[in-house]
Amino acid sequence: MDPEQIAKAFVDHYYTIFDTNRPGLASLYQDGSMLTFEGQKLAGAQAIVGKLTSLAFQQCKHNISTVDCQLSGPGGGMLVFVSGNMQLPGEEHPLKFSQMFHLLQSSQGNFYVHNDIFRLNYA
Amino acid sequence: MDPEQIAKAFVDHYYTIFDTNRPGLASLYQDGSMLTFEGQKLAGAQAIVGKLTSLAFQQCKHNISTVDCQLSGPGGGMLVFVSGNMQLPGEEHPLKFSQMFHLLQSSQGNFYVHNDIFRLNYA
Repeated sequence: MDPEQIAKAFVDHYYTIFDTNRPGLASLYQDGSMLTFEGQKLAGAQAIVGKLTSLAFQQCKHNISTVDCQLSGPGGGMLVFVSGNMQLPGEEHPLKFSQMFHLLQSSQGNFYVHNDIFRLNYA
Repeated sequence: MDPEQIAKAFVDHYYTIFDTNRPGLASLYQDGSMLTFEGQKLAGAQAIVGKLTSLAFQQCKHNISTVDCQLSGPGGGMLVFVSGNMQLPGEEHPLKFSQMFHLLQSSQGNFYVHNDIFRLNYA
């Protein structure tokens, strides 16, 4: 399958789950996964999803502007770089963000998120 | 050496070369390196530096806001995620950008840029 297609399918899948069933993101991370969220470091699926489900907003809607992808090297991983914005309830203006994912293949052959770095882009 | 220190040293080094001697960036890429610059894909040190040295502006000054890093997996690589802005000559406002690098160790043990994805953050 084309890496670009995999990246776009992953991005659609990830943010749909984030916006509709955030605890379901647990299935996309593993014990060795890492998240850096606005500079805060979390390790392991449980801690990562704990962080994502305890953010101050209960609802949000991601709108994706760009998706770039590259193969990450000999290990068969894939880098996915996303820019977009998040609409939060009660906020007039959406928040712009950039996020990168490093996807690796699990022993079952599925891609999972090994690395995740998120930053809001302050105007 | 601490990954955070390596990442910060790399970022300082990279943007100092970019701002003062852009052709010198060739030493930081290898034949297998990839750059996606505002969606345009380039492969190999020569093509990458050809792109970077032919951008419309001859001078610029990068100002770095955030540097995040994570180890990328079993291969000993490192992911570096940067946000900041670029001041171009004659422009009143700096341009905000996000950029990610995947650094791998060469056979000589030095880190080089295997993956580079750059996006301007439009306001």
